[in-house]
Amino acid sequence: MKSIAIISIALFAYANVFFQESLAEENPEVPAYSLKSSQLETAQGLIDTALESDLAHKIVESLTTEVGARLGGSEAEKRARDWGMKLGKKLSFDRVSVEEFTMPYWERGKLNISLTAPYEQKLYGTALGGSASTREDLDAPVVYFRSVNDILEIEPGSLTGKIAFIDGEIMVKSQTGAGYGPANTRRTVGWQHAERGGAVALVVRSVGSDSHRFPHTGMMRHKEGTWASIPVIAVSNPDADHVRRLHRLGEKLSISLSSTAEWKGDVSSGNVILDLVGRDKPEEIVLIGGHLDSWDLGTGAIDDGAGVAITTAAAELIARLPKRPRRTIRVVMFGAEEVGLLGAKAYAKQHADEAENHVLATESDFGAGTIWKFDSNVNSAANPAIDEIGKLLSQLGIVRGGNDVKGGGPDIIPLVELGVPTVRLNQNGMDYFDLHHTPDDTLDKIIPEELAQNVAAYAALVYLAAELDVEFRTSDKETGETTSK
Amino acid sequence: MKSIAIISIALFAYANVFFQESLAEENPEVPAYSLKSSQLETAQGLIDTALESDLAHKIVESLTTEVGARLGGSEAEKRARDWGMKLGKKLSFDRVSVEEFTMPYWERGKLNISLTAPYEQKLYGTALGGSASTREDLDAPVVYFRSVNDILEIEPGSLTGKIAFIDGEIMVKSQTGAGYGPANTRRTVGWQHAERGGAVALVVRSVGSDSHRFPHTGMMRHKEGTWASIPVIAVSNPDADHVRRLHRLGEKLSISLSSTAEWKGDVSSGNVILDLVGRDKPEEIVLIGGHLDSWDLGTGAIDDGAGVAITTAAAELIARLPKRPRRTIRVVMFGAEEVGLLGAKAYAKQHADEAENHVLATESDFGAGTIWKFDSNVNSAANPAIDEIGKLLSQLGIVRGGNDVKGGGPDIIPLVELGVPTVRLNQNGMDYFDLHHTPDDTLDKIIPEELAQNVAAYAALVYLAAELDVEFRTSDKETGETTSK
Repeated sequence: MKSIAIISIALFAYANVFFQESLAEENPEVPAYSLKSSQLETAQGLIDTALESDLAHKIVESLTTEVGARLGGSEAEKRARDWGMKLGKKLSFDRVSVEEFTMPYWERGKLNISLTAPYEQKLYGTALGGSASTREDLDAPVVYFRSVNDILEIEPGSLTGKIAFIDGEIMVKSQTGAGYGPANTRRTVGWQHAERGGAVALVVRSVGSDSHRFPHTGMMRHKEGTWASIPVIAVSNPDADHVRRLHRLGEKLSISLSSTAEWKGDVSSGNVILDLVGRDKPEEIVLIGGHLDSWDLGTGAIDDGAGVAITTAAAELIARLPKRPRRTIRVVMFGAEEVGLLGAKAYAKQHADEAENHVLATESDFGAGTIWKFDSNVNSAANPAIDEIGKLLSQLGIVRGGNDVKGGGPDIIPLVELGVPTVRLNQNGMDYFDLHHTPDDTLDKIIPEELAQNVAAYAALVYLAAELDVEFRTSDKETGETTSK
Repeated sequence: MKSIAIISIALFAYANVFFQESLAEENPEVPAYSLKSSQLETAQGLIDTALESDLAHKIVESLTTEVGARLGGSEAEKRARDWGMKLGKKLSFDRVSVEEFTMPYWERGKLNISLTAPYEQKLYGTALGGSASTREDLDAPVVYFRSVNDILEIEPGSLTGKIAFIDGEIMVKSQTGAGYGPANTRRTVGWQHAERGGAVALVVRSVGSDSHRFPHTGMMRHKEGTWASIPVIAVSNPDADHVRRLHRLGEKLSISLSSTAEWKGDVSSGNVILDLVGRDKPEEIVLIGGHLDSWDLGTGAIDDGAGVAITTAAAELIARLPKRPRRTIRVVMFGAEEVGLLGAKAYAKQHADEAENHVLATESDFGAGTIWKFDSNVNSAANPAIDEIGKLLSQLGIVRGGNDVKGGGPDIIPLVELGVPTVRLNQNGMDYFDLHHTPDDTLDKIIPEELAQNVAAYAALVYLAAELDVEFRTSDKETGETTSK
């Protein structure tokens, strides 16, 4: 398999160079950009060093082992911040800090869920984020919906005393994760329809692409600030298959359910911030990072210990260069991402008046798989420089995508809204949703060589973004002026 | 991958013919055996029909869906017997019956298990078969043993008030399942050492070859009729990895534990028996089957719904021939296999005085994977006939093993002890122990084409074993006489 991987990388690299050249020919009006040979040498050195380094793996091993699962707002997440501060100090960062914020805290509690008709059989389920508890143990008949579309028109009161079950398809696998959005509706808003129908609870097929016997958790969406008043439980794909087969046989189903999930009031969380201060333009920030919190079912190895480890390791390799790059490189370990991008929103709010100092931002939050595509959304005048970085990255099997792809990861969304330009190193997500938000998100699922490829790409990209004399910020379309100071 | 599989089958087939010829050359004194062309045609027709049939898949789908999990001795296992009787009557069997027996019944109950030091984190565990309950909730320090070998010399009282944790290696994967025995010791007898040391509970690394976050259950061994007096819990491989890493960091570990597992007294179980009565020698029995019970965590698709389905479907295809074979073909759906071969022992006891009527026996109880090797243990004079059957099976990618391999599956052991000759169609068990005894043993794990290959092999083999005028029974080594009547 290794030789196949190498051939694939070679083919990608070839295709990349080929398309780069084609693009250059098609856009003769865009002036070319050349990296200095010293910059190229430094970036190449970072790539070579990163591919031989196990630093990122050591970081994610440390986080998942020494801290473990770390739900946003929990005591464990506090321990993760302490861990992040300690790590930042141990490594070569110039400034380390925690920026705290307040958030509402939801806890999963305990769950028992079983089929009780046509016979008794345990179901493998978990409460979805924001779910209410059962006030008393439930045992109720099931009303089966083939998909979320079938419950959208439900009449008020038509589900009174019943448990709604929303089936659906196993999430489509893809390199880009394109199946997630369509599958996710049953999880995010299914409860609003079940509740309107008067259901005592909602059970949904997990949003995930695997066939293992554990559920995928994830946050529901609130409706104008109001969360579900009923318990909402996801069951594993094999369990949902089982329910579907019984339903097709014409069996009357019932489910028993008890859950102690609940909102616990406001607690403290925070973002950990590690800076390498720029030697020439310290106020200009290239922001990278991942999120420090995880769901509580697994130990958050791929989501998102990997992202924290990749970006921290990349910054550390840059920190070990003889001199700092021109701009500041900031690693943010965002808090409370899973439960609503709370750390990201807090960061954007706390740094709103210096948003324009953020010259480029990106996050690693799509697992630990190989990076295969490099997208950007920068000032079009800066695109030739980004293309040059893309050419350098092609040796890692990474193709250049486009400059029209907005967004550098979930925690970057609030910064994008403030006009911060982004790049994105897209990881192969083909198997990501087999593990994402499940108990199976554990260290053993990370392939060290793939993690090292990530670090190599981030190190080269981030170094150059901080070093080059290139303005990535887009011009303000309303005024026609550049948003830079 | 399909082309690779086809090439593999071709290579196997070639190797088979090659070795067959070599063996024949090496044993010139054994007279050759020829199948009649009508017999060959019928067997070939069965293979062709079986490869196109979805009967076995329909049977295992029906069992796992309509009955579900079916622990030995449970109400669910009773429903499985009713299902088996109904199926036998619906299909073409001449006689269907249930032979009951009494057995002690153990129930898993509920379990909560968590790390509590160095921090709180849920462990994914399950009580092992025969485990005692916790009398009160436990929270105790952990004494870590790197392997079961490290606890064998434990001094009485040296674990008082402690929870013993027996680690070990992830079970070695192999086509033959050779890794199971060595890994299994920590599960079967670990408790005896922990108990002698005075431990309040034992936690062991699951016996299984996967890296998923669920435990593998399985029966412990009793010691002179006495079962464990302490709770014994298996945790998933990723959880055991986690404990190992924390231990290596020098952390003091503790675990909290509550379990309601317990022995419930004597209950009724039974074997379902489906006969195709032989047209010429009805008293002579070719016995095939699988076990009807399953562990309660999954729905017993590969262990052993598949075996029940394969052998029932094979017999049914034979039943649809214009006439019955000479001998009786008996499908036994054994009860209570997982909890100690109780159905098999009851069958051997109930049929002890007609044991010699059983001319050949085999069981399918190693999953639903492709059969790759055909072993036997029959009268050496019958071996050329078995070799001829082997040649026919080579078209299915099955190599001929040896005639010195005793045992036709777990439920055949008590019959072997009574002198019954056996054959064995060995399935590829490379991934079997990823699923075996876990919640993940569900219908979706069965590949219909592989199941059909199994039915084809069983149908041809069992038809010929029942049709040929060959004596498989071995001569009695003590008297020098044949054990046949």
